[in-house]
Parts: sequence; structure tokens; C-alpha cells
Amino acid sequence: MQSDNQILVPAAELEQRVLGELTRAGASQASANAAVRALMHASLLGVDSHGVRLTEHYCRMMAGGRINRNPQITVRRTAAGSAMLNGDDGLGHYAAYKAVDLGMEIAGEHGIAGVGIEHSSHLGAAGAYAVAGAERGFVTFVTTNTDSMVALFDGAERFHGTNPLAFAAPVPNSRPWLLDMATSSIPMNRVLLHRSLGKELPAGVAADAEGNPTRDPDAAEMLLPLGGEEYGYKGAGLAGVATLFSALLTGTTLDPDFIPMYGTDNDHDPRNMGHYVIVIDPAKFVGAELFGQAMHGYLASLRGAPARPGRSVMAPGDREWAEAERRAANGISIDPDTARFLKVR
Amino acid sequence: MQSDNQILVPAAELEQRVLGELTRAGASQASANAAVRALMHASLLGVDSHGVRLTEHYCRMMAGGRINRNPQITVRRTAAGSAMLNGDDGLGHYAAYKAVDLGMEIAGEHGIAGVGIEHSSHLGAAGAYAVAGAERGFVTFVTTNTDSMVALFDGAERFHGTNPLAFAAPVPNSRPWLLDMATSSIPMNRVLLHRSLGKELPAGVAADAEGNPTRDPDAAEMLLPLGGEEYGYKGAGLAGVATLFSALLTGTTLDPDFIPMYGTDNDHDPRNMGHYVIVIDPAKFVGAELFGQAMHGYLASLRGAPARPGRSVMAPGDREWAEAERRAANGISIDPDTARFLKVR
Repeated sequence: MQSDNQILVPAAELEQRVLGELTRAGASQASANAAVRALMHASLLGVDSHGVRLTEHYCRMMAGGRINRNPQITVRRTAAGSAMLNGDDGLGHYAAYKAVDLGMEIAGEHGIAGVGIEHSSHLGAAGAYAVAGAERGFVTFVTTNTDSMVALFDGAERFHGTNPLAFAAPVPNSRPWLLDMATSSIPMNRVLLHRSLGKELPAGVAADAEGNPTRDPDAAEMLLPLGGEEYGYKGAGLAGVATLFSALLTGTTLDPDFIPMYGTDNDHDPRNMGHYVIVIDPAKFVGAELFGQAMHGYLASLRGAPARPGRSVMAPGDREWAEAERRAANGISIDPDTARFLKVR
Repeated sequence: MQSDNQILVPAAELEQRVLGELTRAGASQASANAAVRALMHASLLGVDSHGVRLTEHYCRMMAGGRINRNPQITVRRTAAGSAMLNGDDGLGHYAAYKAVDLGMEIAGEHGIAGVGIEHSSHLGAAGAYAVAGAERGFVTFVTTNTDSMVALFDGAERFHGTNPLAFAAPVPNSRPWLLDMATSSIPMNRVLLHRSLGKELPAGVAADAEGNPTRDPDAAEMLLPLGGEEYGYKGAGLAGVATLFSALLTGTTLDPDFIPMYGTDNDHDPRNMGHYVIVIDPAKFVGAELFGQAMHGYLASLRGAPARPGRSVMAPGDREWAEAERRAANGISIDPDTARFLKVR
């Protein structure tokens, strides 16, 4: 069951292994369950960088004390539609799912909810939480800022993180519409992959130490924002939106000020990471039923639109949900290090 | 006072001329004032395509009956945080400003507001309304869908509009942070400009009739989404976000179903355009004062970041606000057709 050194593991087994290791590392049941759910979301949908391979990192950070193994989440309700949730420096997945739960409760009553999250940590794939809202019938937006990795437009140092914006919308009797996008064109591990393969990068995705765009993976010191050399001010602005919501509205750490996620001796100080969640109840706008019909009509028209020669047209999430179905049936490939840590075979 | 056939007009005079023509066309005082405010926002900030040149179009649509000259806006409060606003087919600017006003009222009490707008029309630059909220201390998001103009990722027909996402945030004693971006790389009038100049287009911004990317402005039949040939699925997804909020949550017209804004004999049927506004009160999250301090710190760090050789780094909106200052002092250049319509000189 190997290909390219990858090891194929049935999803249910992988889930149990991840839960086992998080539990062994001392994670409370609630926070371990949340992390497993989010990691499996990413690993099933094909976002391996944010999937089960992070288990070892989280366990190490719980051992070091950066991540609180038994967080007691507290909520400050500031108004009918708004709240601040304090993650007590636990696993970010736990805080983020709790924020969406709270957001749904608020939005179900008041139409819309804004929940800021403080004292959290890395949350994996932001889309996991947007999907959690959409699966219950809510349009959901989730964002977080992250470690500096991306130049500003025409900038010459890492400033914003790859700061994701994740949106999901319910589709009756179907998987949610899902857009979970980094505001850079590619992630840094794509650069590392090209480096190890000695393969040129696409144009406009990375820059050298002076901020000049480069296609040489060895010279690449930072990512460029979505839009590349000409229109990267849009991607940089969107990275700013993630920071605006996640860090500025919550009073948490700015992208350049994070204790690094990796590559630091400091595994004991919490990073006070922030996230932000907006949950909207379609019932309080056009109405749940009409919204469902409109989603179906829109998606039918989108998926039926003509494609350019040799290509096909998909709705956001279509590729990921198809991959999730394949992986649920055939198993999930993991790298040898992760297999070793999870004691798979 | 000419350059390239453009005519330079003092801002105050231009404002009076636009108001005069809208009033002469029968626009109610309230809706004319709103349109003037939004058109002047765009013309001052340098977004000429969405500025005073649209006055003639709006006047023609009021004459034809597509746009209601004396709209009676109605509001349906659906919950504490949510509302649907019916623009009564009047000028979109009037409905959009009213929606932000209502959003601020709601958010001031409940922390966050979601306002859907139906039975509206073209609103000019979405950023005008985001700024209106930010100038009063609120983080504000405004979006609208528009006439089909942009291919899907790998698509071969115009599907989404250039669907803008506009975000603004208050900065104490300063102009707001402002991101008002189309989800295509360029607008269609840029293609027309290149066509008239016989100048090649940048790569990855437009496609021919089969959906294949082209740099030939004469072959360009549609725009490509932000992200271009490789990462355009992100721009296409963001265009979908605009449609999700503006059309699907409000039950209004989908991008491909609009009666065309231009180039149609039908100037009498309303287009039932939708928009969506989210207003957030920072006081209900980190707190207004801390938020203001955080914005200042963030912007100082951003503007002080090193730039690549020969370039400079700016925050979203910096370029536009500087242009607005220049234009307020020196006047606003308008094209000869607009000058004729506005009876300038």
C-alpha cells in the first residue's frame, strides 16, 4: 500500500491514530476531538499540509506548554450579535469549532453573528469551520492571520501570513459550496517542493531577499500575494482583511509578531493567535427555502457553463469534495514521518 | 485646462453640475444627493469608470423608467442583527447608503449587522459605502454582483461580473483603510483602452471567445478572474462570494441574468440588482480605543516595511486618498462627452 514512499491508511484508522496520539499527549477529550475533526477534514479534502501530519507538531507544543492541554474556553457576550471567545491557549481547532457553534446559536436568533477569538493557536484549515456552519444551514466566513511569509505588494520582507479566507454556503442535499483560499498564490511548502525537485517556480509567486520576483526556488525567500507582480496589491489587501478581522478586531498578535510556529526553541510561550467568524442565517434574508433553490440554480448554471478546450469548469469545493469521496473509499496517503509518529504499520 | 482632451473641473463645480443634471432628470432630492456623493467619491479617488461619467447613463435610465426617480425605500427587520432593504428600483447609491446607515444603527446596538438589498440598481463604486461606515467608526464590508463579464476558471463564456469586494476600517484621525477591488485583474474598459491604442494586454487577464487566454485586445472577449491562468480559481471563487452575498442571500438577479446595463433597447425594466452590507462595531470586540491603536500600529509597521528596489510600499487606500487630495486641490479631469453632458464650459 505504498506509492512514492507515501503510506495509504484507511480514514477510520487514521482518525483513531490521531486521536490516540493527541490523547496520549494529554489533550482533553473535547479539544482532541475538535483537532481530529479538523485534521481529518483537511486530510480527506486533499489539503495535506493542514492535515494529520500536524499531529506531531501539536503534541510537541502541548508537551512544551505552548498549547494548553486542558483549555477552559470562556465567552464574553458583548451584544446580541457579537461575542469574544477566549481559547485559553488550547488547540485552535477547539476554539474555532466552539466559535462557529456559538455563531450559529446567535445567528439563528439574530440573523448574523460576529465572533472574535483570542488566545487561540494554529487552527489547521480555516475551511473546516466554514463547512461546520454550512452543514448546519448557515453561510459562514472564517479567517485567521498566520506567521509572516508573504511580501507586501512591492515589499521586500515577509509581512503578512498566507492568511486564508474561508467561505462556505449550504446546498440542500449536497456538500457545501466551499472556498478556502490562501491570499498568496502558493504555500511556502510548494517552494520547498520545487527546491527539492530543482524545478522552476511559476512566475509571480515568490520573491528573492530583495523582494524581486524570482522563479528560482533556491533564491525564493518569501511568497508574493495573489495577483502576482501586476495585481498583487489585491492579494496583499485580502491578506490585510484577514489580519483586520483576526488580529486587529480581536487585539491579538500581528503576523510579524508571532513567536514562529516552527524553528524556534520557544515551545512554551503561547502565541495568542486570533481568528474571526461570521455566521449568517439565510432564513433571515431571502429565506432558507428560496436560498436553497437559488444555490441549486446558480450551481447548475455554473457547472453547466462551457469550458475552454481540454478543460472543465467546477464550483468552489467540487474538486475537494470529489477527493474526499475518493479518500474516504480508498484511504489517505501519509508521509513516512507521519506514519512513524502515528505508529501506522 | 486640458490634457489629452480631458477637461479639468473644480470638484465643487463638478458636484453641482452632477446634482443639477440628476435633479433635472427628476431624481428625488434624497436619491440625487446619494448618487452625487458616491459619484464624487469615485471621481475624487481616481476611479473614473465609476465616477461622474455615469451621470448621463443614470439620467437616461430614469427617463426610460428602468430607474425609479422617486424611490420609497422600505426596510424589513428580520431579526435583531439583520434586515432586508428594498430599494424600490431607485438609484443604487441611495439604497446602498441607506443600508450602511441602517447597518451602523444595528451594529452600534448589537455588535454586527447584515443588511441585504433587493430591487436596487447600479451603485457605482462599492468602496463609497464601505468608507461611509468606516468614517463613522465601523468596519464595513460591501459587495454587489454585476453584469457577466468574467470567465469562470477554465470557462469559455462570461459568467460572473467583475463583482467587487469592498472593505473599509476606521483609522483614528486619518482616512480609512480601504480595499475596493474587482475580482477580475482588470476592468473591461482597460481592454477597450488597449484595443484603441493597439497595445498588447498583460498576460492572464483576458480570454478569447473559446476561453483561451489572449494578450490580443482585439481577440479578447471576456476577462479572466484575479489569479490569471494558474490561480484564477481563487478570483473566480471570490466573484462567487460577491454573488453569494448580493444575489443568492437576497434573492435578486444572478450575474448572467441581468438585463444588460448598456447596449440594450430595454431601458424601462428594472434589473432587480442586489447588494449586501456587513457592518461591525469594534467597540463590541477588542474595544474602539484599542482597535484604533492597533490600526495605527499595524499601518505604521506596514508603511515602514522595506520595499523592493525602485518601488514603495503602501497600505490599501493610500494611493486613492493621495489622489483624492490632489484632485480636491487641483480639480477633476473629465472626458469630453461627460463635459458636454454636464455643460461644463
